[in-house]
Amino acid sequence: MAHLLQIDASPRGERSHSRRMTREFADRWTQAHPTNTITYRDIGRHPVPHVDEAWIAAAYATSHPEATQLEAIRISDRLIDEFLAADVYVLGVPMYNFSIPSTLKAYIDQIVRPGRTFGFVPEQVENRYQPLVLGKKMVIMTARGDSGFGPGGRNEKMNHQDPYLSTIFGFVGITDITFIAVESDEFGGASLADSIASARTKMTQLIELPLIG
Amino acid sequence: MAHLLQIDASPRGERSHSRRMTREFADRWTQAHPTNTITYRDIGRHPVPHVDEAWIAAAYATSHPEATQLEAIRISDRLIDEFLAADVYVLGVPMYNFSIPSTLKAYIDQIVRPGRTFGFVPEQVENRYQPLVLGKKMVIMTARGDSGFGPGGRNEKMNHQDPYLSTIFGFVGITDITFIAVESDEFGGASLADSIASARTKMTQLIELPLIG
Repeated sequence: MAHLLQIDASPRGERSHSRRMTREFADRWTQAHPTNTITYRDIGRHPVPHVDEAWIAAAYATSHPEATQLEAIRISDRLIDEFLAADVYVLGVPMYNFSIPSTLKAYIDQIVRPGRTFGFVPEQVENRYQPLVLGKKMVIMTARGDSGFGPGGRNEKMNHQDPYLSTIFGFVGITDITFIAVESDEFGGASLADSIASARTKMTQLIELPLIG
Repeated sequence: MAHLLQIDASPRGERSHSRRMTREFADRWTQAHPTNTITYRDIGRHPVPHVDEAWIAAAYATSHPEATQLEAIRISDRLIDEFLAADVYVLGVPMYNFSIPSTLKAYIDQIVRPGRTFGFVPEQVENRYQPLVLGKKMVIMTARGDSGFGPGGRNEKMNHQDPYLSTIFGFVGITDITFIAVESDEFGGASLADSIASARTKMTQLIELPLIG
């Protein structure tokens, strides 16, 4: 029995490829493993706040936070509790301007926090940061207007989406990440259809593997 | 005579290194070139909205947008007018979780728009995107908690801040970008002091150069 956290970062509804892909993944995962459970969070249509100065002061407080500080990180606490409760994550992430949507960055800034998702010991010069989110698996469904952003592709160097997500989730301890991309949304036709078919095949292989769920 | 757009992305006030650096730059630039003008935008403390589905529909509309669509991109229009009016930019950008703050990504998503800051011709397969923001100069003051994120540094591969900003501003046509970093904010002491002194030296050289202003 495992718990899945499904997160959509697209502001689009029915027109979103990444949103459709996470839904398909969640549906098929539940069918394959009926005792598993799912939490759904839609940060694309219901964004979480940007972190602010009060948040930083509270999150990095060296003594026990005061009441006003606790209030500043209340949403962060709730998001982190939800994040840590999952064994598996599926994220739907469109590429916006070669990177992730601002709503997903706002979410990441809320959940990457010292003492909760990473350890921070400034004095320990050789080993200041420790990952705290261990033993999890993540599947990231990306959607891109253009194509060729994968390894060896003509736009690989412009891809600040997958490499960044690997860096930041790896930093908190999530290193088992599978990326599945739908490309060519802006151009449609056969290249989009091929890309969707290829993404579905990868998804099927992933759900059938015993290591998830 | 030149016009400067000064943008701060830090949510911090007096504690912000990047904010102090952009202020110093703006002050000294004005002293050195008294006829120049400045517009100031504080996206760190007064964030611009995330783009949403209505924004995308309006920005990528193939026919003339309807009244409701024009409303969806009204803020974007205003931000782009302001952006295009500048000859020189100075941005204050703290590194958050190895990347830029979510507020700066929200701003970028508002100003990178087909027909305004880049040309988009889907049919022109070999040359679909054209930069439209030409002949500008940009200075980016970054601030980082840790150090070693520069070229050859031990954390260079974790740096998704400078490389991303080069990619996205280069995409719209701004290729003359100078990065000045203040590092080691989390640790303070001599390494922070050295980093601030070094940043100030670079800033001085930049203001004295005839190519800016």
